[in-house]
Amino acid sequence: MIIHTPHTLRSIARSIKTPLVLLFIWDVIVTITYYVVPFPAPGLPLTLFGSVLALILGFRSTSAYQRWWEGRGLWGLMINASRNLARASRNFMTGEQGQAVARAIVLRQIAYVNALRHQLRRIPMTGESLPYIPAAEAEATLGRTNTANGLLDATGAQVAQAHADGIIDSIQQTQIERVLVDIANAQGGMERLKNTPLPSQFRLFPTYFTHLFCVLLPFGLVEALGPATPLGSTVAGMMFMAVLAIGDDLVDPFANTRHDLPLDTMCRTIEIDLLQGLGESAPAPITVDAEGVLW
Amino acid sequence: MIIHTPHTLRSIARSIKTPLVLLFIWDVIVTITYYVVPFPAPGLPLTLFGSVLALILGFRSTSAYQRWWEGRGLWGLMINASRNLARASRNFMTGEQGQAVARAIVLRQIAYVNALRHQLRRIPMTGESLPYIPAAEAEATLGRTNTANGLLDATGAQVAQAHADGIIDSIQQTQIERVLVDIANAQGGMERLKNTPLPSQFRLFPTYFTHLFCVLLPFGLVEALGPATPLGSTVAGMMFMAVLAIGDDLVDPFANTRHDLPLDTMCRTIEIDLLQGLGESAPAPITVDAEGVLW
Amino acid sequence: MIIHTPHTLRSIARSIKTPLVLLFIWDVIVTITYYVVPFPAPGLPLTLFGSVLALILGFRSTSAYQRWWEGRGLWGLMINASRNLARASRNFMTGEQGQAVARAIVLRQIAYVNALRHQLRRIPMTGESLPYIPAAEAEATLGRTNTANGLLDATGAQVAQAHADGIIDSIQQTQIERVLVDIANAQGGMERLKNTPLPSQFRLFPTYFTHLFCVLLPFGLVEALGPATPLGSTVAGMMFMAVLAIGDDLVDPFANTRHDLPLDTMCRTIEIDLLQGLGESAPAPITVDAEGVLW
Amino acid sequence: MIIHTPHTLRSIARSIKTPLVLLFIWDVIVTITYYVVPFPAPGLPLTLFGSVLALILGFRSTSAYQRWWEGRGLWGLMINASRNLARASRNFMTGEQGQAVARAIVLRQIAYVNALRHQLRRIPMTGESLPYIPAAEAEATLGRTNTANGLLDATGAQVAQAHADGIIDSIQQTQIERVLVDIANAQGGMERLKNTPLPSQFRLFPTYFTHLFCVLLPFGLVEALGPATPLGSTVAGMMFMAVLAIGDDLVDPFANTRHDLPLDTMCRTIEIDLLQGLGESAPAPITVDAEGVLW
Amino acid sequence: MIIHTPHTLRSIARSIKTPLVLLFIWDVIVTITYYVVPFPAPGLPLTLFGSVLALILGFRSTSAYQRWWEGRGLWGLMINASRNLARASRNFMTGEQGQAVARAIVLRQIAYVNALRHQLRRIPMTGESLPYIPAAEAEATLGRTNTANGLLDATGAQVAQAHADGIIDSIQQTQIERVLVDIANAQGGMERLKNTPLPSQFRLFPTYFTHLFCVLLPFGLVEALGPATPLGSTVAGMMFMAVLAIGDDLVDPFANTRHDLPLDTMCRTIEIDLLQGLGESAPAPITVDAEGVLW
Repeated sequence: MIIHTPHTLRSIARSIKTPLVLLFIWDVIVTITYYVVPFPAPGLPLTLFGSVLALILGFRSTSAYQRWWEGRGLWGLMINASRNLARASRNFMTGEQGQAVARAIVLRQIAYVNALRHQLRRIPMTGESLPYIPAAEAEATLGRTNTANGLLDATGAQVAQAHADGIIDSIQQTQIERVLVDIANAQGGMERLKNTPLPSQFRLFPTYFTHLFCVLLPFGLVEALGPATPLGSTVAGMMFMAVLAIGDDLVDPFANTRHDLPLDTMCRTIEIDLLQGLGESAPAPITVDAEGVLW
Repeated sequence: MIIHTPHTLRSIARSIKTPLVLLFIWDVIVTITYYVVPFPAPGLPLTLFGSVLALILGFRSTSAYQRWWEGRGLWGLMINASRNLARASRNFMTGEQGQAVARAIVLRQIAYVNALRHQLRRIPMTGESLPYIPAAEAEATLGRTNTANGLLDATGAQVAQAHADGIIDSIQQTQIERVLVDIANAQGGMERLKNTPLPSQFRLFPTYFTHLFCVLLPFGLVEALGPATPLGSTVAGMMFMAVLAIGDDLVDPFANTRHDLPLDTMCRTIEIDLLQGLGESAPAPITVDAEGVLW
Repeated sequence: MIIHTPHTLRSIARSIKTPLVLLFIWDVIVTITYYVVPFPAPGLPLTLFGSVLALILGFRSTSAYQRWWEGRGLWGLMINASRNLARASRNFMTGEQGQAVARAIVLRQIAYVNALRHQLRRIPMTGESLPYIPAAEAEATLGRTNTANGLLDATGAQVAQAHADGIIDSIQQTQIERVLVDIANAQGGMERLKNTPLPSQFRLFPTYFTHLFCVLLPFGLVEALGPATPLGSTVAGMMFMAVLAIGDDLVDPFANTRHDLPLDTMCRTIEIDLLQGLGESAPAPITVDAEGVLW
Repeated sequence: MIIHTPHTLRSIARSIKTPLVLLFIWDVIVTITYYVVPFPAPGLPLTLFGSVLALILGFRSTSAYQRWWEGRGLWGLMINASRNLARASRNFMTGEQGQAVARAIVLRQIAYVNALRHQLRRIPMTGESLPYIPAAEAEATLGRTNTANGLLDATGAQVAQAHADGIIDSIQQTQIERVLVDIANAQGGMERLKNTPLPSQFRLFPTYFTHLFCVLLPFGLVEALGPATPLGSTVAGMMFMAVLAIGDDLVDPFANTRHDLPLDTMCRTIEIDLLQGLGESAPAPITVDAEGVLW
Repeated sequence: MIIHTPHTLRSIARSIKTPLVLLFIWDVIVTITYYVVPFPAPGLPLTLFGSVLALILGFRSTSAYQRWWEGRGLWGLMINASRNLARASRNFMTGEQGQAVARAIVLRQIAYVNALRHQLRRIPMTGESLPYIPAAEAEATLGRTNTANGLLDATGAQVAQAHADGIIDSIQQTQIERVLVDIANAQGGMERLKNTPLPSQFRLFPTYFTHLFCVLLPFGLVEALGPATPLGSTVAGMMFMAVLAIGDDLVDPFANTRHDLPLDTMCRTIEIDLLQGLGESAPAPITVDAEGVLW
């Protein structure tokens, strides 16, 4: 996620430089042609095209933003549920043996969110990606198609064992199970966003129509703007392309790009909260990098 | 669900080729007529028509997309609830007898989501559609008007039996019952989407008005565009028809077409998660077919 | 709810025939007047009016659709909750006595949804409207201002008696109570929709403004369209009136009209599910009538 | 809440009569000035102003409507929760002593919703506003800053006493507590709507801009409309002012005006449901008054 | 949060005075230039720019308002949950010892919401910011990265201790735990809003495009408006800038500015409710300050 705006400006410029230059060259060619071989250049269809295009682009930006914000909301729920799991485990599982079980559950939760982060960003996991759990358990769960889910199953099994050992009663077990349901629902929601791109029509039509519109723009403007056409046409095209780019940047919130949600930072937040809750020392929070991006 | 875009482009072209050709022929006829028998061709009503049409099409695309996304969200809830049912069953039902009951519940859940998939896509079911449950039970539930619901009833009865047998206590029974409520709610939501099409007005008016608009377009443009009318008019018409098509494709997310939600894939995901959770071997995930479609 | 589209088209035509004819006559009068007594007829205010009108109509269609869809969603919740009540009753209330109580609760739930349907559609109820409960109980609850609520109270009392009789424990009682809360919430939501029409401004302004706009349309178009004014003006007016009609049709989803939600059908769905769950024979589902309407 | 439309029409006319007359006079002045001292009067900025204004007014109407509908939804939840509280109390608290406690809780709930109604509408409360509870208790809770909250605390304390007296067990107590949470959440939501007006920008800008637009309208229209300017300009201005008025009417749903939500009626509905549930006689429902308003 | 409108007007004027003056000077320069060195000044691109800009600004205002309103909703949930925590603690924890524990939990909750307020507004906390808890505990929790979370952990631990001491049973403990989950979820939601600004594109593009549009405005209007250009152009520019400013003001609802949500007031509301619930005297509610702002 981009935080500092100065870098953002440069980053925007860099990302749309090439199409902007191409667009300007095209606008110049059309304008020169118009003066060499005059052709009729009416404005009406441009308004029509523009209004349909605005409709489509508006819909797409909104959808993309909603996906991005829903992704953020789901990670927020994961942070909350992780805190709730930790608090309930520590408070329900009393006695020395209980506290040891609670600690194992809390540490596995840190491994769990990191595993989930790897899965969503499609980063391959090794045993080192799961530092807070025993190496043997890490190896075993890496064999599951869905490693994060395997870790959640392990937590559920450990809670069941605590129940069997008399550390917690059925009531406390089901309350913890309810938190596990929250965690599973948040994970499922994230996987839904990751595995279900916007319908292909919403991915392709806006792009095609925006490009087509930019190509047609100078024809529609040249009669009115004359020599100022390349300028006016490029500025107008740039605005449409900027709105198009917003959609592209936000549509996949777990894409492992600079426009991404800051999953590293949120996993660290969970790590700090959970470790401090155990009374143990925690690493420092993650801050923005040199380019103003929070990963 | 269409995943790979190259195929998508061709698929779009194929699906709107016929109307596009018809539209172009009509535009040529109007243009030629205009040069043979000139008629006044004012622009204003076109703008008026266009703005009402954009309003209706925008509303319809949004509604269709929301239906599609709600359908996806409900299947996401089904995936989560299936995992929750499996985890709770395995962790609450301890001992050898308990584990056998849990295994039966988990396997029936795989049959359940497949039965639901058949029902939503209106594919007839046979005993072979329900491979993970005993043949006798499959036959019995196929007699129910709503087979999936019958399977859910069977799971509820088995949980009740486990309670009667002392495997789980009332607290654990009600926690599992709560997961069954989640499953029933997700199923009910899917059936709501399937059985309640968009109101007929939203299905018919956009289509009629878009066609009417395309017919009127060349009359409104011919004065301004002259010989370029067929080109301009067909391009503008195509944009409106494309927006119309988006709505048609997404409005029924369980239609068993290539624009459909990938129910096969999601049922397989559940199958894998649940089997691996039992420690048993699972089939491979489903991937996109040769045409870039995920079923 | 209208399902089959051929009938829909005729039904639409029938419902807007009168205003369309009136509109056309008016458009002809204005056009003739224009040629007899020419008057200036500028276009700008029309665009202004049109855009405000589109704003209002768009808002109203959206609100009406949301009310319709919320009504459907609430009935969906009622279907789910009825299934959940039936499943929980049958599974929690074991033994011969328990099964008899469960059966009574399930049958009363069928009576309950039918009572609710009558109340929402403002159809007077008699004892025969409540076939699945003892005649004496039917008479008693018909004396309540809110009969459906009285039936729900009776179910709650029967559950309490089952608890007093030792058939279920407190945990199971509260889980059933939670399902009753779901049912009460769904009912309350439906009554909210029924008793709270759209604010009067949203009912009146769109109608007044659309009519005013249709009256002004020919004045604004006659200069540009000339003799084609009646045609163009009537078509444009028809589009606005069609959008207006959508709002009128959907705004009260329990109005007992052909645009209504199919409450009969959904009550029958519940009846079938619940009877088959008891292992008893059930009537056939309701299908569309000869006019393509599902009641 | 205004129910009957004839009265509504007159009420609308009455509420916008003064600004309409002022607007018309202004439009006449501008038009006469134009014919005495001609000035250039271009149309373009009007379209620009109009589109920004439409954007702002559209947003504001939507927000105001959402606040109004959310307020109605929260009162709906209150009706449901009151029914749930009454049903649970009557069914959980058995025996003669239990029924007496349940009756006291149900009657206090009627007092509670009336206290809440007074607080939201900023109507001072006296002991007579709280008829169903003992005078001493009424006096005591009137001393609380938030009287309704005090009554809810009293219900919670009575439930706790019933638990201490062995009338209900912990499970039933927590189920009732959950209903109290629902009630507290509904109340909190209503107070949120009451205490948090729309941001001042959304209250002021639409008003200023609409007035400014109405002042500028005749300048922009006079060239095109000529002597018809006062008519056209007043009609257009009226439409914008009507949309503005919608927002004003709905933005505070507990304002104790005729556009208000019918809190009296809903409190009476609760009173009837709860008294009839106790088997006691209840007052008649509230109906619309002579002016077609439901309070 | 600004409550009194007179001050608001002045405050608005003050906040946009500088850009307005600059804009007016620029408009005058362009107009004079036009009369000295005439240049063609077409209107079409302005309409195009204006419609894209309206799209972007509309989206941004909506998003900003939704963030602001979500922030308010989350604080509303916090008020509700605080009341629920207090009521449940007082009613579940009976006996002298239990009441003492309940009182400590209630007082810590007051400290908790104040700690959260400090964290969200980025105001450094000292021991004096947490007046209702023992100094030692205050010191300890100030060492946590997330102090509010530390206080919530302490409440959870105290509830666990009450369970261990036999004051409450498991059922009551889990019900209180559920309220803690509500509190943790509300806090998590607020931190999500605070830590996740709108995507940089939505922060920068609207600002750039609005400024660019204001710069281009006089060129597009000068041909039509002539000497009145500076007036018309400044008024139109002001409207766009006002819409832009709305987004800036609302986008961060915990920014500790005058447009902020009234966190001080809401924390005081909680303080009053909770102290009066304990039967102790409470401070007066916070009212608007001399400038009409509620902090």
